[in-house]
Amino acid sequence: MTGWIAIAGLGPGDDALMTPQVSQALSDATDLIGYAPYVRRVPDRPGLARHETDNREELHRARHALELAQAGHRVVVASSGDPGVFAMAAAVFEAIEAGPPDWRMLDVRVLPGITAMLAAAARIGAPLGHDFCAINLSDNLKPWDLIEHRLRLAVQADFAIALYNPRSKSRPQGFARCLSLLQQTCEAGRLLIFARAVSTPDENLRVVPLRDARPEMADMRTVVLIGSSATRLIERPGTPFVYTPRSAPV
Amino acid sequence: MTGWIAIAGLGPGDDALMTPQVSQALSDATDLIGYAPYVRRVPDRPGLARHETDNREELHRARHALELAQAGHRVVVASSGDPGVFAMAAAVFEAIEAGPPDWRMLDVRVLPGITAMLAAAARIGAPLGHDFCAINLSDNLKPWDLIEHRLRLAVQADFAIALYNPRSKSRPQGFARCLSLLQQTCEAGRLLIFARAVSTPDENLRVVPLRDARPEMADMRTVVLIGSSATRLIERPGTPFVYTPRSAPV
Repeated sequence: MTGWIAIAGLGPGDDALMTPQVSQALSDATDLIGYAPYVRRVPDRPGLARHETDNREELHRARHALELAQAGHRVVVASSGDPGVFAMAAAVFEAIEAGPPDWRMLDVRVLPGITAMLAAAARIGAPLGHDFCAINLSDNLKPWDLIEHRLRLAVQADFAIALYNPRSKSRPQGFARCLSLLQQTCEAGRLLIFARAVSTPDENLRVVPLRDARPEMADMRTVVLIGSSATRLIERPGTPFVYTPRSAPV
Repeated sequence: MTGWIAIAGLGPGDDALMTPQVSQALSDATDLIGYAPYVRRVPDRPGLARHETDNREELHRARHALELAQAGHRVVVASSGDPGVFAMAAAVFEAIEAGPPDWRMLDVRVLPGITAMLAAAARIGAPLGHDFCAINLSDNLKPWDLIEHRLRLAVQADFAIALYNPRSKSRPQGFARCLSLLQQTCEAGRLLIFARAVSTPDENLRVVPLRDARPEMADMRTVVLIGSSATRLIERPGTPFVYTPRSAPV
């Protein structure tokens, strides 16, 4: 048996948002490995070995997947959203680079998925309809000063901004500091979208102007979208539409 | 009949990358409207009226779709990639905001798709595995100075950068100016990925250091990914892997 490894994006939650390419890989796999809540999203079936791991063990999990593939298994590494956006793909390539030369010869594929910011944007309108950036607020992997530096420059560039992992367990004050930086540098009416657990039964969407934004509006299942200075709100009954026009003023 | 409008992302090309949600909307629709090459990706069937338009007519196309939905049609507006990323969703919301109040009451949904930068990143490894931004180089809709301003700040922030529509018809020199700006501000070994027509029969991937990058390596079907200063290349037979580590140096 020839082994392979597919680092697959399950999308934000709803199976209707998972690509047929990922479904096919899950059908063909002998082994499924990932952070426990993601592994549990895939129905059990005979012939599929399941390996649930803790969230903090990305490199260990990546090496385990590579060892299984080298031994001839067909391994799916499950990520939520897209595996290339603050998820497992980078960890697998880090393991390959640091690992035995044989690992470079393995059949490794990354199967893209619908990442949280795009699922959230779609639910509210088109807030990322112009230039934008994505910043991971988890400071396990980078110093806080770098996060602030990037956020300042993103505001100067007038990007729409997606913040992933806004409430870091290791430093719960991080997102509060972001809000405070935004309140010092942006107009009070700047639009923020708190999008929690999009496409799942727990979905919750909230649009607030910066002046009313509070740190506790976000948790680890939330992606926060910050409009650019041009982002607009269209009032209607229920949740409004929010979009960023395609054109920038000349 | 109650009309609706679904602004749907067909993904980068391969049907295996189109979500079941989008396939379902295409099955339920009475009308399909969009830029001709995207409409042609959807197989013909009885009961589906097809409306192909020119690429420059986004607002006209959006209004047409809204009028059809208001008249009770079930309308899919087709975008390549994700409709919220430099595509049709923002145009539809612009038309809604400027249109009659009734349009705000319509059933309007955005159905996300796999956008070009994430499809391209997946094919080469995980170059967007750390903080990143997306910039549209088409200067039909914004002044060139703003593009340069954003690119400079993105380099200062040390984002990985995805450039959409690198060769604008209206100003073919734009991408050459970007390369020249990058060559002045980044190290000569900075990694660039030219990803053309990903997931289609015309797919072509090329990894080059900045010193060897040339404007003619990109065309309108190319997305260009620019690594951050931390992006790494893993040599192997054939196309190398490229990834950006999850951690930033402290």
